[in-house]
Amino acid sequence: MSLLRADAFISPLEIERAVNRSLEEDLGRAGDITSIATVPEDASGRAVVVARQAGVIAGLPLVAAAFQRLSPAIALEPHARDGAVIAAGTKLMTIAGNARAILGAERTALNYLGHLSGIATATATFVKRIAHTKARVVCTRKTTPGLRALEKYAVRCGGGYNHRFGLDDAILIKDNHIAVAGGIKAVLGRAKQAAGHLVKIEIEVDSLDQLEEVLAVGIADVVLIDNFDLAAMRKAVALVAGRVVIEASGGIALDTAAAIAETGVDYLSSGALTHSVTNLDVGLDIEM
Amino acid sequence: MSLLRADAFISPLEIERAVNRSLEEDLGRAGDITSIATVPEDASGRAVVVARQAGVIAGLPLVAAAFQRLSPAIALEPHARDGAVIAAGTKLMTIAGNARAILGAERTALNYLGHLSGIATATATFVKRIAHTKARVVCTRKTTPGLRALEKYAVRCGGGYNHRFGLDDAILIKDNHIAVAGGIKAVLGRAKQAAGHLVKIEIEVDSLDQLEEVLAVGIADVVLIDNFDLAAMRKAVALVAGRVVIEASGGIALDTAAAIAETGVDYLSSGALTHSVTNLDVGLDIEM
Amino acid sequence: MSLLRADAFISPLEIERAVNRSLEEDLGRAGDITSIATVPEDASGRAVVVARQAGVIAGLPLVAAAFQRLSPAIALEPHARDGAVIAAGTKLMTIAGNARAILGAERTALNYLGHLSGIATATATFVKRIAHTKARVVCTRKTTPGLRALEKYAVRCGGGYNHRFGLDDAILIKDNHIAVAGGIKAVLGRAKQAAGHLVKIEIEVDSLDQLEEVLAVGIADVVLIDNFDLAAMRKAVALVAGRVVIEASGGIALDTAAAIAETGVDYLSSGALTHSVTNLDVGLDIEM
Amino acid sequence: MSLLRADAFISPLEIERAVNRSLEEDLGRAGDITSIATVPEDASGRAVVVARQAGVIAGLPLVAAAFQRLSPAIALEPHARDGAVIAAGTKLMTIAGNARAILGAERTALNYLGHLSGIATATATFVKRIAHTKARVVCTRKTTPGLRALEKYAVRCGGGYNHRFGLDDAILIKDNHIAVAGGIKAVLGRAKQAAGHLVKIEIEVDSLDQLEEVLAVGIADVVLIDNFDLAAMRKAVALVAGRVVIEASGGIALDTAAAIAETGVDYLSSGALTHSVTNLDVGLDIEM
Amino acid sequence: MSLLRADAFISPLEIERAVNRSLEEDLGRAGDITSIATVPEDASGRAVVVARQAGVIAGLPLVAAAFQRLSPAIALEPHARDGAVIAAGTKLMTIAGNARAILGAERTALNYLGHLSGIATATATFVKRIAHTKARVVCTRKTTPGLRALEKYAVRCGGGYNHRFGLDDAILIKDNHIAVAGGIKAVLGRAKQAAGHLVKIEIEVDSLDQLEEVLAVGIADVVLIDNFDLAAMRKAVALVAGRVVIEASGGIALDTAAAIAETGVDYLSSGALTHSVTNLDVGLDIEM
Amino acid sequence: MSLLRADAFISPLEIERAVNRSLEEDLGRAGDITSIATVPEDASGRAVVVARQAGVIAGLPLVAAAFQRLSPAIALEPHARDGAVIAAGTKLMTIAGNARAILGAERTALNYLGHLSGIATATATFVKRIAHTKARVVCTRKTTPGLRALEKYAVRCGGGYNHRFGLDDAILIKDNHIAVAGGIKAVLGRAKQAAGHLVKIEIEVDSLDQLEEVLAVGIADVVLIDNFDLAAMRKAVALVAGRVVIEASGGIALDTAAAIAETGVDYLSSGALTHSVTNLDVGLDIEM
Repeated sequence: MSLLRADAFISPLEIERAVNRSLEEDLGRAGDITSIATVPEDASGRAVVVARQAGVIAGLPLVAAAFQRLSPAIALEPHARDGAVIAAGTKLMTIAGNARAILGAERTALNYLGHLSGIATATATFVKRIAHTKARVVCTRKTTPGLRALEKYAVRCGGGYNHRFGLDDAILIKDNHIAVAGGIKAVLGRAKQAAGHLVKIEIEVDSLDQLEEVLAVGIADVVLIDNFDLAAMRKAVALVAGRVVIEASGGIALDTAAAIAETGVDYLSSGALTHSVTNLDVGLDIEM
Repeated sequence: MSLLRADAFISPLEIERAVNRSLEEDLGRAGDITSIATVPEDASGRAVVVARQAGVIAGLPLVAAAFQRLSPAIALEPHARDGAVIAAGTKLMTIAGNARAILGAERTALNYLGHLSGIATATATFVKRIAHTKARVVCTRKTTPGLRALEKYAVRCGGGYNHRFGLDDAILIKDNHIAVAGGIKAVLGRAKQAAGHLVKIEIEVDSLDQLEEVLAVGIADVVLIDNFDLAAMRKAVALVAGRVVIEASGGIALDTAAAIAETGVDYLSSGALTHSVTNLDVGLDIEM
Repeated sequence: MSLLRADAFISPLEIERAVNRSLEEDLGRAGDITSIATVPEDASGRAVVVARQAGVIAGLPLVAAAFQRLSPAIALEPHARDGAVIAAGTKLMTIAGNARAILGAERTALNYLGHLSGIATATATFVKRIAHTKARVVCTRKTTPGLRALEKYAVRCGGGYNHRFGLDDAILIKDNHIAVAGGIKAVLGRAKQAAGHLVKIEIEVDSLDQLEEVLAVGIADVVLIDNFDLAAMRKAVALVAGRVVIEASGGIALDTAAAIAETGVDYLSSGALTHSVTNLDVGLDIEM
Repeated sequence: MSLLRADAFISPLEIERAVNRSLEEDLGRAGDITSIATVPEDASGRAVVVARQAGVIAGLPLVAAAFQRLSPAIALEPHARDGAVIAAGTKLMTIAGNARAILGAERTALNYLGHLSGIATATATFVKRIAHTKARVVCTRKTTPGLRALEKYAVRCGGGYNHRFGLDDAILIKDNHIAVAGGIKAVLGRAKQAAGHLVKIEIEVDSLDQLEEVLAVGIADVVLIDNFDLAAMRKAVALVAGRVVIEASGGIALDTAAAIAETGVDYLSSGALTHSVTNLDVGLDIEM
Repeated sequence: MSLLRADAFISPLEIERAVNRSLEEDLGRAGDITSIATVPEDASGRAVVVARQAGVIAGLPLVAAAFQRLSPAIALEPHARDGAVIAAGTKLMTIAGNARAILGAERTALNYLGHLSGIATATATFVKRIAHTKARVVCTRKTTPGLRALEKYAVRCGGGYNHRFGLDDAILIKDNHIAVAGGIKAVLGRAKQAAGHLVKIEIEVDSLDQLEEVLAVGIADVVLIDNFDLAAMRKAVALVAGRVVIEASGGIALDTAAAIAETGVDYLSSGALTHSVTNLDVGLDIEM
Repeated sequence: MSLLRADAFISPLEIERAVNRSLEEDLGRAGDITSIATVPEDASGRAVVVARQAGVIAGLPLVAAAFQRLSPAIALEPHARDGAVIAAGTKLMTIAGNARAILGAERTALNYLGHLSGIATATATFVKRIAHTKARVVCTRKTTPGLRALEKYAVRCGGGYNHRFGLDDAILIKDNHIAVAGGIKAVLGRAKQAAGHLVKIEIEVDSLDQLEEVLAVGIADVVLIDNFDLAAMRKAVALVAGRVVIEASGGIALDTAAAIAETGVDYLSSGALTHSVTNLDVGLDIEM
């Protein structure tokens, strides 16, 4: 059974790079000197990865890779896979094998699992708040540096969707671009001219007037309505009338999510899902 | 003027690697297609990095490196340096030069600055709570994967101290090690035998009885008292009487910090400082 | 003056990586042993990069980077920039400085320039053939391994456009996907459900019947009509009537391009632009 | 059975690096989003790599490595090995296993196979033209950047030989070196003095006079006669009378090859074999 | 059975990186052209790694990794493990499998084994000289660039101990630090203030007066007595009376080691163990 | 003035990689914690690289690069260049600038300089012993792993020459190859057939009989006479009579070198020059 969520993806190359980088950080030059000093090299152990909190799991493929990297012979028995909604105390994976390898990879495994599950859990909470609407939540490019692909995946594990992965996979026109280009019509024209036929165009608007102008030009696929109040959002939804996708951003928080989603916007984007992460508490119960 | 905090360190090699990795994530294969489409290649701009919240700053060397990486000719004028305690609205750095380079490096720069300043700010809040005691706060190995050296640095910017950087720079004996080795006396003996003369030995204890045993053996430099209540902590401090350094861990939170520090322990260790980070809100005000 | 074409992009990180990789290939472990043996280390030289054929130039930033990598003090005077349409014999850049560095970087510089200019030139020839129509030519993912970003850029230098940079920046549904999903309606439904709101959906069709089905479902942004004859293409254009973008592929060659473009399709995609490249003949005239 | 041609070589490290680099280009950050959306994660498939044109095969080890990299459990059954001369329609390898992995590695596998087989096929055509003579064809350092070792290998698969792999594995004296050193005698003396005892010395001459001078000095192992006409080549061969190896270069093309080879020169060197490559048409027939 | 010495460590990531780096150096771009020319690709061979000299072995995990890297199917039968004290002629490992792979990895394997066993052997000789005392020998940061972790490990294999792995794992105050800080008391105060609670402090002293001052301040964990004569060392030991650890450095050689150790110092540090290494003579006996 | 020896080479890419690797080893994750604690960040210093022993210098470009890597603004004044024969106490380079950067790069700089100068010095001693003959000394592939290119360069600095840099730059036939191929004639025939026209062929012989056979076949460029005694060497020289180059190997040591060289052989190859290196004692005199 794959440990990845079925409809999301992390490349095996990314998993390998991530685990290597983190093991190098933790093992340093001399390795786990405590275990080398106190645990016989041929000691075996058994450990269970446990969620100490309820939440949504993301990162199990990295957990598996971390232990296998230090001991290819280690035995892994997964009890869940990414995207699972679990209760506190749920056993996620059993690991059996060389004791030093278990102890040496423990922190790498748990740091990834706690961080990514934290994101998945926060996303799932968000998704639940807006589940009675058609709106979806998306994360942004405000990700932890070096972890973008993994964090985007974690958002998917929590039931959210992804905005751009980088500056290069869609056009997103903001105020500065509008200003430099000399207005909405001009900037959309330039974007249309430059964009490949598989590239969508989104534009950020700060007011209903700007929105009307965007709709009049008729090039944008998506409008980002930034910092609109609820009333303005509702007007925007009415104005757009399904002609483009509407994404709301700015001050999107857990307690405002439902009200915003109920205005009829299509997407809510939240940077906090990835830039301000609370770890899910996960641990390793070890018997040696 | 260096942008690094004077008494802390990030290697220039680490800064370069971090910035490259993050720019690659964001620029992808095709780069900032929005700006390429809408901003003339020779357009100049001026941007100011601004803290939108009060806090403590960490990460300015990465900010500088990100912009310079995309345009070596860009002009940078710093208005603060790492470790600065700043008010909301403080201007941190002025950047002037190629507009596309400013827009292309913006997110890399802000993601580092927001994340590391978030850690520094949380640390500083913690430090303030215990400032009336002799206790220090330290972070742990529960860091965001790939960012350990940077996050340890951010903790220093906030006035905290660092525990181990990895498994290899001190011995830290936990319950599993004690169990495998056959008890506290045996495990400390093995550690003493194996440790280099520049390696300190710390041991985690769960009870006052264990603590007494540790003190009787006399090898440990530091004891980690894990999940002790306040009364037990006070007894531990009395028992130790300065013979070893005492570090308290387990359930260390902002609202319990003062009471714990007042028991007389030397160090409080907090994983949350680095594993559950709230970004400091920083932004870029751009004029083009 | 930038050497990059104004409306296209290669990341400076990519340029650095590419040049390093190629210099390592050529210098090997012992370097340019001929020049070390025969040219005094302090000899200076002057060299001119010359196009020995007419064509369109792409790759000058890599030329500059190659020489500077071996001698940061070398002086470069460009006489053209990427995208320039030049006659045979045109001088593209003058290089002056350490003679050994000039000889050591020569092949790296010319191999990139010849290869990328070959692509740009072939693209420009293609573009010219269809210039009387509204159609655009795009390249595919059939690129030389390791050079995708550079080759996509070269196509832009020649006046072409880019299809997907990778599997991850748009959905492109082919026959296998349709078969597995159980038909066109089902596969488009799944794609719609899974796709982020900034991801376009393209679907390949083999017949007008399939095209009708696609149009009836109404989810696709782009249809790829594969191996249609001219008559069928004209019918497809009529059938679509502007509702989706039409891309023609399969057997697109220089001598069929005009006729295909005249059918009214929006895009012609050609793998040969990047998978079967004829170098533009470029050379270095050296005076030492 | 090894997939490598028996008398040629690519390092397993190079294969791994090449495949990783190309998969990263193609999978990007989000992977094969089409297949993730439309193909069940546990779907199995069967695919056959087929040559759609007649030619000579090179690159099968990279094909195998690409599929295995995405799914170590995938089953590979080769039907040919590198160097094989095959007819159009020949099945080269059967792949069975995870359908998403097959689709995700397809382009990487085919891009290598098509490019390298294109070189092997062109080389074989060349070799055939001169098969009635003792002459051999060699490729040059005009290779596609980043692919030198692979392309040199492909030339071997087609029956050609390799000139220098880089600037460091033999001395090749050209006009600039002669000029700087002060003439043929002086430059050969310097080369002889500097060269290790396992390094051969080749010198390029533009005229029969220069050739005579080279022969008189008596140090060179090989002479490169550049842009000689057929008559001059014949004179050169007579003049040399077996004392040194003769390599002809400049304007070596398929239609002139036989005549040149018949002059009695030992080697013909052709940059076009690697700098102007026409892909061999290869494809993947998939059943899912 | 692990090939690593039981109480010492090299990370599997480091082994992989080391072996890759060295194989790349040796295989270059074209590989083992001699064996490709003369040994059939399917030839099998059998080889025995033999110590041609008596000594102490270090590096067998790298030997194994080198052969496996070129042929995963190769069979390895170890007859010893790292740390073994062996006689001349001892067989260390038998390798059976593809003959070209054996020949291609031979030098990489032997270069590591000879170098690291040379260090282990020299260390063991040193350790023997002081075995009648309580003193230990430690290596320094004067290691061969790029090989620090491996050489530190080899010292452990020979029975020695490790000083700092880098500038970051302990404080070591030297004359320049004392001078800049304004004296011993000041510098120790600063170090104490800055050091984490798991970082030891060592200070170098050049005289008994300085030593007294250090002892009076009472912060240092270790004193490094540099270039003391034997009489001064004895006085230092008496003066210290067990309050701090004493390390002797400067002119520590094999013939002075015993006398120095007999003065009662705790550690002797020797740069020569790693900076001036005599290879242990190891070879490969091959039958094909 | 370049710091490289004029007639030898290290690539700037190799210098950068080497220095980065070594600085990473030494700075670790937390950097030079001693200097950070005790030296003000804006303190300036002046340091002189001094040879404490007489010898031949190699490695100054790496010294320069190490200091510049930590502080691009540092001022470097060289007083010598690689290949210089210097007396004990000679000042090699003066460095002025940030004190922490000087201290942080000191060990990296000295480790390279001491190691490579050790090789250059040992080589120069060897060269001197045979200076009255026409023989040259060459190093082998028995180099310190990871340092081959640098060590080959150091041998050149000492006046020696280089044998193969790797398995790929010449054919060297040994006993196993002869045995597998079925004798000397067969193996030389295969080698001749396979070798490119710029690849030399060397063959190792163990007896005069084998030598005669080699000469009779007439393909080899170089013969390696392995473990011949002086009388046999003289016979070999007489037998060869200038038809091929003769290299003597096996038991080549400093005290036997002159006698061997006087037999008339062309090259002596010595593995010990690079596999058993005694550091040249170099140091840094610092004023802060």
